[in-house]
Amino acid sequence: MTRDPLPHLVIIGGGFAGLWATRALARARIRITLVDRRNHHLFQPLLYQVATAGLSAPDIAAPLRHILGDQRNVEVRLGEVTAIDKQARQITLADGSQLGYDTLMLCTGATHAYFGHDEWAADAPGLKTLDDAIALRRKLLLAFERAEAEPDPARKAAWLSFAVVGGGPTGVELAGTLAEIARHTLRNEFRHIDPASAKVRLVEAGPRVLSTFPEVLSLKARRQLEKLGVEVLTGTPVSDINSDGFQLGNQFVPARTVVWAAGVAASPLARTLEVPLDRAGRVPVRPDLTLDGHPEIFVAGDLAALSQADGKPVPGVAPAAKQMGRHVAAIIGARLENKPAPGPFKYQDFGNLATIGRMAAIVHLGRLQLSGVLAWWFWLAAHVFFLIGFRNRLVVLLNWAVAYWSYQRSARIIFGDDREDRRPRQPTDTHQGPTA
Amino acid sequence: MTRDPLPHLVIIGGGFAGLWATRALARARIRITLVDRRNHHLFQPLLYQVATAGLSAPDIAAPLRHILGDQRNVEVRLGEVTAIDKQARQITLADGSQLGYDTLMLCTGATHAYFGHDEWAADAPGLKTLDDAIALRRKLLLAFERAEAEPDPARKAAWLSFAVVGGGPTGVELAGTLAEIARHTLRNEFRHIDPASAKVRLVEAGPRVLSTFPEVLSLKARRQLEKLGVEVLTGTPVSDINSDGFQLGNQFVPARTVVWAAGVAASPLARTLEVPLDRAGRVPVRPDLTLDGHPEIFVAGDLAALSQADGKPVPGVAPAAKQMGRHVAAIIGARLENKPAPGPFKYQDFGNLATIGRMAAIVHLGRLQLSGVLAWWFWLAAHVFFLIGFRNRLVVLLNWAVAYWSYQRSARIIFGDDREDRRPRQPTDTHQGPTA
Repeated sequence: MTRDPLPHLVIIGGGFAGLWATRALARARIRITLVDRRNHHLFQPLLYQVATAGLSAPDIAAPLRHILGDQRNVEVRLGEVTAIDKQARQITLADGSQLGYDTLMLCTGATHAYFGHDEWAADAPGLKTLDDAIALRRKLLLAFERAEAEPDPARKAAWLSFAVVGGGPTGVELAGTLAEIARHTLRNEFRHIDPASAKVRLVEAGPRVLSTFPEVLSLKARRQLEKLGVEVLTGTPVSDINSDGFQLGNQFVPARTVVWAAGVAASPLARTLEVPLDRAGRVPVRPDLTLDGHPEIFVAGDLAALSQADGKPVPGVAPAAKQMGRHVAAIIGARLENKPAPGPFKYQDFGNLATIGRMAAIVHLGRLQLSGVLAWWFWLAAHVFFLIGFRNRLVVLLNWAVAYWSYQRSARIIFGDDREDRRPRQPTDTHQGPTA
Repeated sequence: MTRDPLPHLVIIGGGFAGLWATRALARARIRITLVDRRNHHLFQPLLYQVATAGLSAPDIAAPLRHILGDQRNVEVRLGEVTAIDKQARQITLADGSQLGYDTLMLCTGATHAYFGHDEWAADAPGLKTLDDAIALRRKLLLAFERAEAEPDPARKAAWLSFAVVGGGPTGVELAGTLAEIARHTLRNEFRHIDPASAKVRLVEAGPRVLSTFPEVLSLKARRQLEKLGVEVLTGTPVSDINSDGFQLGNQFVPARTVVWAAGVAASPLARTLEVPLDRAGRVPVRPDLTLDGHPEIFVAGDLAALSQADGKPVPGVAPAAKQMGRHVAAIIGARLENKPAPGPFKYQDFGNLATIGRMAAIVHLGRLQLSGVLAWWFWLAAHVFFLIGFRNRLVVLLNWAVAYWSYQRSARIIFGDDREDRRPRQPTDTHQGPTA
C-alpha cells in the first residue's frame, strides 16, 4: 500500500501557541511533529498557585500525549532542540537525532531574565516551569521553618523578610498570596515565631504596579495589596541581590527570601535562527508571523516580536499566543488547499485581568473596570473556564474552594532536594530550649 | 507568672507511631517536641499511587504543623537527628542544635535495603518517600518516551521491559498498576510503540507472592496479576542488577526499568542507640516498648522488634504502628498521673488487605477471605476511611473515581531533574523519520 508523502510540519514548543496550532490542524492533510522538552502542557497563569502551595503540579499541567492522543496526524516527541538548519530544513535534538521539516513553527516562549545580573539567579529564583514552582514552594516554606529554629532575633527577622521583585501580574500574585499565607494559613502552627509578623515587600522599579492597566486600576491594586499586608515599593530599581537581602537605592534591606518576577527574555532557541533579535531576544516576524525570507518558518507566542497597526507590540499573554497559534494554522491550512491565505495577524484584545490575593483582583475589559471582590470572582470564573481540557476542572475547583474557605493550602508539602535543610547553623546556636 | 516546668517528651519521627502517640497525649500535662526530617506526615499505603501517577504528592501527605497546629502542648521541629546521648538525655540535630528530653520516643520507621548490594540502588530505586515516588514516576514515564524515540528494535524492547523485584504488597501494587498503565492508560498516545506490548515482570525469591496471606489467597493474587498482564516469577532470587537488566538464576533478563520492592531495613538512626539490633537493624524492645535498662526511652513502629505471645513478630504495618503509638502514650499518661501503667503491648490484628490493580485485591479478615472485585471495593473503602485527616478525602476520592472510570492517571507529569533526558544517544541513530 502506497501513500502520498504528506508534508511535514514541525512545531517546537507545546505551550499555548504550539498546542492551539496543532489542534487547529486536526483535520489537515499534514504530518505534524510536536517537539517539547517537557511531557506536559502547562497552564502558566496558575503557576504561582503551585509555588504558593495552593494547587499541586498535576492540577495545572496535562500530558501532551494525552491531549493529542486521538489526533492521528500528530506525533509528540520529548526532546530539546539544539540547532535549526534553515537551509537544509532540519532540526537537531539534544540526543543527536535530526528531524527534517517542510514547515517549521517555533514557539518556545520566554524564560525569566536578570538583565545582565545572572549572579542573582541563585538568591532570587524566578517562576516559569513546574520545577521552578516546586523549588520556590520549598524555599518559601523552609524560610518559616528556619525562622522558627533561629534563636537570634535579627536573623529570625531576616528569615521572616520576603521580597518579590517585579510588579507585573506574577509579582503581584506572589506577593499577595505570600501575605495571605503568613497572616492566615500558618496561624497557630509555630511556637517561636508569629508568621503574621513576616514582612512581605513588592519592589517595582517603575512608578506603579500592573503598569499595563489604567492608572486608576493600578492604584486600586496597590491599595488591595497593602490591605493584604504587602509593603509596595515603587520607583527604585533593585541594584543588588545576595543571600542576605537586596539593595534598594542607598538602603540595604535584609531578606533571606527574594523572588524574581521582574524580567522576561525570549527562549534562547531564538538565537539559533541566526537572525537579528529585538532587545528582549525575541524574533521580529512579518505580519503573517513568518520569518523574513523564510515563508516556511513561523514564529509565534512570546517568542515573536510583532507590532500591531497602532504601533503597540502584541503583548506576551496567553490569549495572544493562542490567537497566533490559530492564525499560523489557518495560513498552513490555506496553503495546503491552495486557497488564498488569511490577512495579517491582528491581536484581538478581550481585556486584561490580574488577581492580587484572596477576594482581590482588577479587571479591565474595554470600558469596564472592576476591582475587589467582584473582579476576583470574574477572574476565578475566567480561569476555571480556560482550564477546560486540563486534568479535572471539578477537582481543581474543589481544591480551590476548600483552600479559600479554610485558608488552608493543601499542597504545603516540601519535597525535592532537602539538603538545603541540613546546612549547619552558626556554632553559637548550640542549645535551643524548646520554649525559648 | 511562674509555671511548673513540664516534663519534656521528644518524639523522633512523625509517621503513624509518632503522630498517633502525639495526638493521644493532647490533654496530658507534658511538653512534646516532634522532630521530623520532613514537614509532612505521609500516608505510605498509597505511596505507590503517586509513583504510578494516579495521585499527586499532596493527596497523600499532610503538613505536620497543620495536623498539630491546635495541639498547644506540641512543638514541631523540622530537622534530622544525628546523635542520641542516652546518659545526658539529649539529642543532636544536623544543624548542630541540641534538645534535652525527659522521655524519648523513637519511631523513624524503615527504609528500603539491598541486602548488601547497595550498588543496585542506582538501577533499581525503591519506594519509601515522596521524593522516591516522584523519581520513580519520572523513570517509568521516561522509559516509554525512550522506547518511542529508539529506532533499534532490541533496545526499544529493553525500554519496554519492566521488572519489580519483591512480591510483597508494594511490589504487587506496583506491578499491577504498571501493567494497567501500559495496557490502558497510554493506549493511542504513541506512534512508534504499542505500550500494551510492554513486559511487566514481578520477581519474588520466595515460593509465592503476598506470603503473609493464606496460600489460597496468594494464588488468587497471582492469577489476578497474570490476568492484568504481569508475568510472575517466583522461587529464584535476583542475583545481579545493572542498567541493562537483571540476572535471575542463569538467565539475564533485559530490562531498562527495575524497581526495588524487596527489602526493608530499619532506619539507620537505630544504630546511634548503641544497643544490639536484630538482623533487619530493628531495636529489640521490652513488652512495654521501652529499651532494656532505659524506661525513659520508647521505640515504636517499624523500628521496634517485638515478639507477640505466640512467638510471631509484630508485623511492620500501619495498624501496628498506630497501636504502638497509642500504647506508648497510655504508659506516659499513666506515669504522669502516678497511675498503674497498662500491661504489655498486644498487637490487635484486624486483618490484612492487599490491592493488586484495577478491581483486583485480596482480603483476609479472620475467617473471611475475599478476592477480586469485592475485595477491591473493600480495600478502597478502608483506605478512603483511613485517609481521614488527610488533605481532602473528597478530592482524593474524586481523583480516584475519575482515574478508574477513564483509565486516565492525571498526575502523569514529569518534573524534577530532567537531565536524564538529555543523555546523547548512540551516534548511529542520526536520523529518525517520524513514521519509521
